[in-house]
Amino acid sequence: MKVLLEENEIPEHWYNIVADMPNPPHAVLGPDGNPVTPEALAPLFPAGVIEQEVSAERWIPIPQEVREIYRLWRPSPLHRATRLEAALGTPAKIYYKNEGVSPAGSHKPNSAVAQAYYNKQDGTKKLVTETGAGQWGSSLALAGQMFGLEVLVYMVKISYEQKPFRRSMMQTWGANVVASPSTDTQAGRDVLAKDPDSNGSLGVAISEAVEIAAQNDDTNYALGSVLNHVLLHQTVIGLEAKKQFEKVGDYPDMIFAPCGGGSNFGGVAFPFFADMASGKSLRLVAVEPASCPTLTRGHFAYDFGDVAGLTPLTKMYTLGHDFMPPGIHAGGLRYHGDSALVSQLYNEKLIEAQAVNQLETFEAGVEFARQEGIVPAPESNHAIAAVIREALACKESGEAKTLFFNLSGHGHFDMASYDRYLAGELTDYDYPEEEIQAALDRLPKVDEPV
Amino acid sequence: MKVLLEENEIPEHWYNIVADMPNPPHAVLGPDGNPVTPEALAPLFPAGVIEQEVSAERWIPIPQEVREIYRLWRPSPLHRATRLEAALGTPAKIYYKNEGVSPAGSHKPNSAVAQAYYNKQDGTKKLVTETGAGQWGSSLALAGQMFGLEVLVYMVKISYEQKPFRRSMMQTWGANVVASPSTDTQAGRDVLAKDPDSNGSLGVAISEAVEIAAQNDDTNYALGSVLNHVLLHQTVIGLEAKKQFEKVGDYPDMIFAPCGGGSNFGGVAFPFFADMASGKSLRLVAVEPASCPTLTRGHFAYDFGDVAGLTPLTKMYTLGHDFMPPGIHAGGLRYHGDSALVSQLYNEKLIEAQAVNQLETFEAGVEFARQEGIVPAPESNHAIAAVIREALACKESGEAKTLFFNLSGHGHFDMASYDRYLAGELTDYDYPEEEIQAALDRLPKVDEPV
Repeated sequence: MKVLLEENEIPEHWYNIVADMPNPPHAVLGPDGNPVTPEALAPLFPAGVIEQEVSAERWIPIPQEVREIYRLWRPSPLHRATRLEAALGTPAKIYYKNEGVSPAGSHKPNSAVAQAYYNKQDGTKKLVTETGAGQWGSSLALAGQMFGLEVLVYMVKISYEQKPFRRSMMQTWGANVVASPSTDTQAGRDVLAKDPDSNGSLGVAISEAVEIAAQNDDTNYALGSVLNHVLLHQTVIGLEAKKQFEKVGDYPDMIFAPCGGGSNFGGVAFPFFADMASGKSLRLVAVEPASCPTLTRGHFAYDFGDVAGLTPLTKMYTLGHDFMPPGIHAGGLRYHGDSALVSQLYNEKLIEAQAVNQLETFEAGVEFARQEGIVPAPESNHAIAAVIREALACKESGEAKTLFFNLSGHGHFDMASYDRYLAGELTDYDYPEEEIQAALDRLPKVDEPV
Repeated sequence: MKVLLEENEIPEHWYNIVADMPNPPHAVLGPDGNPVTPEALAPLFPAGVIEQEVSAERWIPIPQEVREIYRLWRPSPLHRATRLEAALGTPAKIYYKNEGVSPAGSHKPNSAVAQAYYNKQDGTKKLVTETGAGQWGSSLALAGQMFGLEVLVYMVKISYEQKPFRRSMMQTWGANVVASPSTDTQAGRDVLAKDPDSNGSLGVAISEAVEIAAQNDDTNYALGSVLNHVLLHQTVIGLEAKKQFEKVGDYPDMIFAPCGGGSNFGGVAFPFFADMASGKSLRLVAVEPASCPTLTRGHFAYDFGDVAGLTPLTKMYTLGHDFMPPGIHAGGLRYHGDSALVSQLYNEKLIEAQAVNQLETFEAGVEFARQEGIVPAPESNHAIAAVIREALACKESGEAKTLFFNLSGHGHFDMASYDRYLAGELTDYDYPEEEIQAALDRLPKVDEPV
């Protein structure tokens, strides 16, 4: 069963959770230990985005121009997974929002389109960003094309070479894609001087993108997760879902979403948090890889957003900025830290977190594909695994809970990972406690402002 | 703008064009020159399918069990391509039906699901088929899984090795995929005896699949295009589109669809033909590759469906069954013949045909992706190219025609082709008249029954 909305039901406002949080997130600190001012962000981001990053307004209007682009694929359908329910023999009801219907195949364009719009408004000519496997890069390529902005993507070299199809997609949408490390930037040249055959890393690609944006007046930087404004833009997902649940006269008892940087979880869960804030009983569950257990095994501390320690410091759950997660197949969840908003809520026990192992996630994804048809992205499989666990618990207990998760994207560009899973070549990786402890011991020492 | 339908608006009947054709298609002939009887098809197909293959009933009920599976993605949205219209500066209105929303990414599951259902009804345990690049094989894998049937796919070896992701998708849905030629069958062993390193071909893969189906009582064969029942199943596309046009108070002046075997064109165009039969003025345009110009340069004659000449003889437009189209990037359109229904209508000038070159199709596909977001399948790009031609003609003439095409699928598994196009490595191929003539001269000599 699918629950559809008409285009005029695309939300007219994003929901800003800051307005309903018992305590706002901690200030972001600059290299001098003082809170970062909005002005300091101006070389990288447009005014509209900076304003949203620090706003405490509950409702922020979605510009008509952004809604026009959303209309190409939004509202996304809410599905009830009746075949999966039957296969599990559970009395639970399972719903999912399908964000894989966007042209880029995930929820990422919800923020990319907004960011492109505010940059266009500000007179930006060119957007620059980094991408690993390519989900964010392709979303920004699409969004830039929609508003007539040039897009330059630094793509981690090993992905550029081994996963060429996301690169082709970005180029189809007119973006310029450069393998990182490159000779374009000082950051890239430094890496190449030490190791001419470097495979690159997300950390290096970020440095290259930021360097280009900082040096060029008409060029801005765009980030696909973690920051407040990104999670804000993603709330269209949860806001649509609330209307869809209303339409069928149901309401979730538990909401599940994969959680890497937090844009997926925040997007689907935050609008429901507003109801919790007004007394509704509801459980919000962030699902992360057992091999990168930021919320479940990390510390709530000030840390850098990047490996090199070039970004401002954010109070967040972190495994230490130099923590290197293993090469799991859900690339979007391989991040040492987490959004400040998600971290703050988790620290106050307003939301929950679960860690699942890689094999369990692929087993869940294959079961989902065989019942519901759609082959999910490996990131989405984390939410599916947690939902299946809960549905089977309901079977034991006889409870008819309403479970809801965000199917953040399809797996069409991840079939090599399914291939390895089906061939029995994937393994689990449970990080040894001493390695996690060692990375946490390297956290920067920060005097928190009072 | 998208025009949506609710699930209860999925059609309850398929439309059988035979009921409205001025002349029915010519009889299919067996090796003895006599018409093939329904009984002769029984070793390969289930009763429900054979009945549809020869039916002249206008409306054939869609079983509830089939509609239940259609609901996983149907009704598919009808989009109006307003950004593309604006970019072309045309007064024409451009609409498209998006069949890429199916889990397999194309319109093919519309028939695969129906065929799996009738086989299940008939007690079939296993379906066997062939696939080239994998669109049909993955659709049948999906459909078989939905009805608990085993699926065995003979995949042309060169595709099996070079395009592994469609194979992974079939395996994710539980199908068994074998590289063809294989040692499973006499047909495969014969080829391997002559050439142990054979890359395989669709012709050989068909022979392997048919051999397995003919030899095993519980195993049937399934074909993804050309046959009457396949085009019948695809009419859900056009039937939904008619409701969607009604909803917005518009109606197409011209309908375009890519045409290889005919399932795509028949699916979208036939239900509108019913209106032409009752006097409505409307143009239906089949768009084919200039390098495989079956309708535009072939003959209307009895010919075999396969290279080896093992199938019954069908009166159709053909380039000769041993015509080898070049390795263009729209694999679904590389077929020497065409559906008997489409051929008959074209011969009576009730429908039209256009041929477009490969470079023009990719240019159209990239323009579409940059305006509308979705990256189309190379097959779909043929329809887009023809629509853009017509929209630009409208710009010249000032006519505000309503143009409609079927976006038969997305291009997520075809990015290597876009890559080659963007790198300037693709070429056009206009078949020399003498080569086409030579293939036509090899057409079998058939005494047509009166």
